[in-house]
Amino acid sequence: MSDTKPVLDQVDADIDNALERLFSLLRIPSISTDPAYADDCIACADHLVADLNSIGFDASRRKTIGLPMVVAHGGPKPGTGAGPHILFYGHYDVQPPDPLEKWTSGPFEPVVKEGANGKQIVARGSSDDKGQLMTFIEAARAYMAVHGELPIPVTILLEGEEESGSKSVGPFFAENKDELNADVALVCDTGMWDADTPAISTRLRGLVHDEVFITGPSRDLHSGHYGGAAMNPIRVLAKVIASLHDENGRITVPGFYEGVKDLEPEIRAQWDGLGFDEKAFLGDVGLSIPSGEKGRSALELLWAQPTIEVNGINGGYTGVGSKTVIPSLASAKFTFRLVGEQDPAKLLEAFRAHVRALIPADCKVEFSADGGGSPALELPLDSPHLSAAREALKAEWDKDAVLIGMGGSIPIVGDFKRALGMDTLLVGFALEDDAIHSPNEKYNLKSFHKGIRSWVRIIDELAKG
Amino acid sequence: MSDTKPVLDQVDADIDNALERLFSLLRIPSISTDPAYADDCIACADHLVADLNSIGFDASRRKTIGLPMVVAHGGPKPGTGAGPHILFYGHYDVQPPDPLEKWTSGPFEPVVKEGANGKQIVARGSSDDKGQLMTFIEAARAYMAVHGELPIPVTILLEGEEESGSKSVGPFFAENKDELNADVALVCDTGMWDADTPAISTRLRGLVHDEVFITGPSRDLHSGHYGGAAMNPIRVLAKVIASLHDENGRITVPGFYEGVKDLEPEIRAQWDGLGFDEKAFLGDVGLSIPSGEKGRSALELLWAQPTIEVNGINGGYTGVGSKTVIPSLASAKFTFRLVGEQDPAKLLEAFRAHVRALIPADCKVEFSADGGGSPALELPLDSPHLSAAREALKAEWDKDAVLIGMGGSIPIVGDFKRALGMDTLLVGFALEDDAIHSPNEKYNLKSFHKGIRSWVRIIDELAKG
Repeated sequence: MSDTKPVLDQVDADIDNALERLFSLLRIPSISTDPAYADDCIACADHLVADLNSIGFDASRRKTIGLPMVVAHGGPKPGTGAGPHILFYGHYDVQPPDPLEKWTSGPFEPVVKEGANGKQIVARGSSDDKGQLMTFIEAARAYMAVHGELPIPVTILLEGEEESGSKSVGPFFAENKDELNADVALVCDTGMWDADTPAISTRLRGLVHDEVFITGPSRDLHSGHYGGAAMNPIRVLAKVIASLHDENGRITVPGFYEGVKDLEPEIRAQWDGLGFDEKAFLGDVGLSIPSGEKGRSALELLWAQPTIEVNGINGGYTGVGSKTVIPSLASAKFTFRLVGEQDPAKLLEAFRAHVRALIPADCKVEFSADGGGSPALELPLDSPHLSAAREALKAEWDKDAVLIGMGGSIPIVGDFKRALGMDTLLVGFALEDDAIHSPNEKYNLKSFHKGIRSWVRIIDELAKG
Repeated sequence: MSDTKPVLDQVDADIDNALERLFSLLRIPSISTDPAYADDCIACADHLVADLNSIGFDASRRKTIGLPMVVAHGGPKPGTGAGPHILFYGHYDVQPPDPLEKWTSGPFEPVVKEGANGKQIVARGSSDDKGQLMTFIEAARAYMAVHGELPIPVTILLEGEEESGSKSVGPFFAENKDELNADVALVCDTGMWDADTPAISTRLRGLVHDEVFITGPSRDLHSGHYGGAAMNPIRVLAKVIASLHDENGRITVPGFYEGVKDLEPEIRAQWDGLGFDEKAFLGDVGLSIPSGEKGRSALELLWAQPTIEVNGINGGYTGVGSKTVIPSLASAKFTFRLVGEQDPAKLLEAFRAHVRALIPADCKVEFSADGGGSPALELPLDSPHLSAAREALKAEWDKDAVLIGMGGSIPIVGDFKRALGMDTLLVGFALEDDAIHSPNEKYNLKSFHKGIRSWVRIIDELAKG
């Protein structure tokens, strides 16, 4: 802690320059979804490589099967210091700015405007994720400016395809496993609870997908000539889907809850204290009754309970009017959201066994050839990295960080776990009104400034080992 | 009966001319589904009008909202004789002949070829329905040639849009109700049980259609951000569909079986004696277990039991790959097949009430704006018209006619019942291998010849009152 204050002072003194550096990054239209901007993406990677090298990192642009990654190494050699080796991840690519006419200033002409919570940086990528990733780089810059070196080994990985499917991540991780290996991953791509309350996303649901194809008769039949005698595969599929939840909304697939843990009392108390307006959350989409297991709050259902969801169903005639057909085939797409220690491969097998048991002897069932998925992230409360981040955020924001969950999945987190064996600490400073992926995306100057300061403190806390 | 033999002799003596007359009808490409053949359809109607007038009918081509109807009146003035006033129905339009290259002779160049059961008339419409309707017209011609007049009042109605949706039937029946009114309708558009066994179709299932739309959230949601909290309408729809049958395959909708009668022992015995190969019937379409209520034969399920069938289902993402969506909407198309005295309007209401009871309080359900349908035909065993036809067919074929059912529906039969208050007697001489709607459609010469003789006998039996 003794070393932290001068670094924080350096951050404060240098904030206008930091903002200018962010602006120069935001001016590069690194839209990864549109091949017309491929050169801009490469220029963006080069820009970051040059900046990181100028601070003192050993940075390079790295070839992938798609757009380049930026990899940089700094700090002491891994294994020589007290603290953990950290891998910081961000992405330099951005969403397309359309619809352009809704922007009040150019999406790639960053400006600072007055907003609800003070000054706001307005540009595509200001929040997602250039503004966020620069909070970490600026923290490292200040640290190295004051102390000459980082206190712990730091690897930085910046991706250029997060908004377009991350297709290079798998092969790149496989080829560079040793180089990317670290003790914990830090990701700055998430949000605060509100403008004054920092948050750490310690739970992220995993994701498994599968598709079920049920064949009844070998061809489509006339429902008059065969109805009553020939089994309709839609009826079988409906029975399968209806069987997945009991009358209390609990999933019935045998073994499905293996690895789902009870919520720790501390977490439950924190969530209960968040003042989450369940009624407004559901009311906003026209609903009022949580669909999951009865007796659990919507937040618990979203953050700490698994789901089986049907994302699509198809069978028979779906055009206009009526057609008297018994179809040969009916199919449905499923995704499961996983929590805790649920095992994706085991769940997939349990689901398929459950489905198979419901298929009449004369019907057939087939499953997606590429069913599978990624496990959940559930950072243990006693993780030293989590403790360090909580200490640091409390010191910076003068308020306990809430340990939130995310109902969705962030594929890269699954990759860190599967390919590199690392847990991930998700700390971000975005706010719900940042309008990411939308016109007039913004990042509060407060998020940027205090975000940088937060990372300085987190690095110092982690260095205590 | 005393008058029958000379008429049958006349049929036999005139059979070559009758065949030539059928050929001239078959040469007209009266394809109602293709507007390019509209003039041929009109020419076909004119041809029939001229022929019927030449026999002694009072025939005319009648305007409709689509292709013309032919209406002809013959025999004594209704109400003056002993027998019933009959309305004979057939259709002069045919299916398109495609694929042309599969025909071994021109579809509109009728020829007689040797086949499995003797001589066959090969042409589009030879069986469906020109050959069949001419069996009746030839019977009337022979009768009038021998006796100068028919023994009972006969109205003939020939439609030109049976293969293209029969859209003119409703308005035409409404406008000509008094003229078309009769005691019973006779239709020659069905088949024999086999080449030696005549059949009367005394049961035809009714048809009700409906569509169900279930709305969950007011917009499509991300299954990560909302999954577990927001109800998925596919799950609700699956529950609805799965609830429609119990574990024995019996329909569970309250009141659904109202109007379904037990099979008469005589009918059950007849059907059991038919040697229907249930295993082969289902095996042919890749199945082995009848899907309807347990303990009933496939024939009983097809001919004498109602169904609820899902003809199509749709919801969420149905493209390639995976999409993590909770859809706002899921929908399914249903048809019910009705038997006995089941009331279409009541069934629709019972179904909808059953569905409504399964919808969570925060979801919405809507139904098709034009749900509805037609009742079943179930000719009572003690119908005098049925008895007359059975007597006549036994005399001609030297074998009891089997009283069969049809799993499908013939819309015109529903119209006769609803618009004109008449039951329908379905007697036809087609065989399963006639390849109707397919290349090389044929009609056995034996069907044609003995079909004519059968109608002579049926007319005489009916005339006995």
